[in-house]
Amino acid sequence: MKKSNPLPPENELVARLTFALPQSLRTLTGPGDDCAVIRLAGAEKLQLFKTDAMVEGVHFTREMPAAAIGRKALARAVSDIASMGGTPCEALITLVLPPDVPMDWLEALYEGLSAAAQLWGVGLAGGETSSAPKNAPIVISVALTGEAMEAEVIRRSGARTGDVILVTGYLGNSFASGWHLAFEPRLQEARLLAEKFHPSAMMDLSDGLAKDLPRLAAASQAGWQLDLASQPLRSGATTQAALVDGEDYELLFTLPEEAWPALEPCWKEAFPAVCLTRIGRITDQGIHQPELSGGWDHFSRA
Amino acid sequence: MKKSNPLPPENELVARLTFALPQSLRTLTGPGDDCAVIRLAGAEKLQLFKTDAMVEGVHFTREMPAAAIGRKALARAVSDIASMGGTPCEALITLVLPPDVPMDWLEALYEGLSAAAQLWGVGLAGGETSSAPKNAPIVISVALTGEAMEAEVIRRSGARTGDVILVTGYLGNSFASGWHLAFEPRLQEARLLAEKFHPSAMMDLSDGLAKDLPRLAAASQAGWQLDLASQPLRSGATTQAALVDGEDYELLFTLPEEAWPALEPCWKEAFPAVCLTRIGRITDQGIHQPELSGGWDHFSRA
Repeated sequence: MKKSNPLPPENELVARLTFALPQSLRTLTGPGDDCAVIRLAGAEKLQLFKTDAMVEGVHFTREMPAAAIGRKALARAVSDIASMGGTPCEALITLVLPPDVPMDWLEALYEGLSAAAQLWGVGLAGGETSSAPKNAPIVISVALTGEAMEAEVIRRSGARTGDVILVTGYLGNSFASGWHLAFEPRLQEARLLAEKFHPSAMMDLSDGLAKDLPRLAAASQAGWQLDLASQPLRSGATTQAALVDGEDYELLFTLPEEAWPALEPCWKEAFPAVCLTRIGRITDQGIHQPELSGGWDHFSRA
Repeated sequence: MKKSNPLPPENELVARLTFALPQSLRTLTGPGDDCAVIRLAGAEKLQLFKTDAMVEGVHFTREMPAAAIGRKALARAVSDIASMGGTPCEALITLVLPPDVPMDWLEALYEGLSAAAQLWGVGLAGGETSSAPKNAPIVISVALTGEAMEAEVIRRSGARTGDVILVTGYLGNSFASGWHLAFEPRLQEARLLAEKFHPSAMMDLSDGLAKDLPRLAAASQAGWQLDLASQPLRSGATTQAALVDGEDYELLFTLPEEAWPALEPCWKEAFPAVCLTRIGRITDQGIHQPELSGGWDHFSRA
């Protein structure tokens, strides 16, 4: 194998690999959003489709409780379904296992997966296990379907100049605080938004606001004006950490200003324990106030 | 992590992990068949759902052409959809990449995936890339949906005493011959069978007849009487190799004896280049003539 051409940063890598892939006519949204969106003949709802992989040494270590790793593997995919306004349905679990993984560890992983699946209404419809060479990292990949009424699907691409930018919960310090293992996907919150307020754009924050907001803005052909001081900081997080730490799994969404007076009291009544914070505004394309850099890049850290 | 309890053989491992998993009400067939089968509200067809992973050092090496590896990754999942009587629909591609993978290799992999997707009518609706630690094997996982009319879904579990056992194509010597990289999933063949002859049970042969026939028999609560001498041998394969080599990706299916006189001429006309061979009969449970052992086990070889 030639050793030329190292991998570019993640955004560019994905863009280059997914450019001009063959698409089915049923695919309404292909690569580039939190989930694919597919129209099935006759079906009442659109189907959402997502895969998410966790790799030992990148996303988890064997020192973490196996049940919590299983829970997190499913939670990450559920968070993506939620962020498009959907409800999760069935999952298939793919495990790649080096020979030294003990059965106890696997059983605990599945206990965490099963408990989480029951909690979020996901059916574990099967999957696959494969061996890996000695010293290979464990890989856990979750393929998850979801569904949503067509009018309630929320993409990254609908933000318009003047829309307010909001985030749920707190940002930053996800690893040290343990939030990255214990977070609850914002399923109910996203459903309320989709049904009653239809955000113009939404995604989940997995790689940090500094990486994810520019993705939302790019998909919407828009820019941003962010009030950094308004970011809701998790205990122990700095303003910079809130931008770049990643693994917040909060909802980032945009709405016309006029929607806010109705949303604020409704939210406080429905989710009194989950803060909702206005952090800025969508602007015309090309405006980046401030410029954002950093955030989790799967390849620059490799 | 405790080092107790090494992994059991694959069949037992899967049985223990998938015992009593939470299922959705929409799931008609969960773990244990080639694909999950799911009923979506209002949809004209049932949905099939499958994931399949290939691991460097287990299923491929970097010396093989990357385009052929991409093609094979999709072909394996398409073969599973075909073996249940279905048509493949949309795929998500998950890549786990150590830092030394060059962009050229990835682009060639995607060329192979894309060409195969177009050939088999699959939409590549997205996916995910994740980094892996240095020296980790490349992992390519394909999540694939399919669809089939309810009356045409063929499971492993319907074989009845007296049914004839048939295989398409040739068995054995898949690796040395290059078949494992170049095989064509039996999509058209399986569709003809599902539409016109509805096999009582069907699956694709991925781990060798010695491992896969007992799985079909167990799912059908049945036994087998096999005529080993009748196995269709690929060039260079012995009778034993045909049983245990694996990666044949042929259809193994069962039918009532009465169906044969109509099937044989129809098959010869539709698929003159694909042999179809009767290799035995389904018997009552407990009869294993001969006992079968060996075949590809993902964990005994790990």
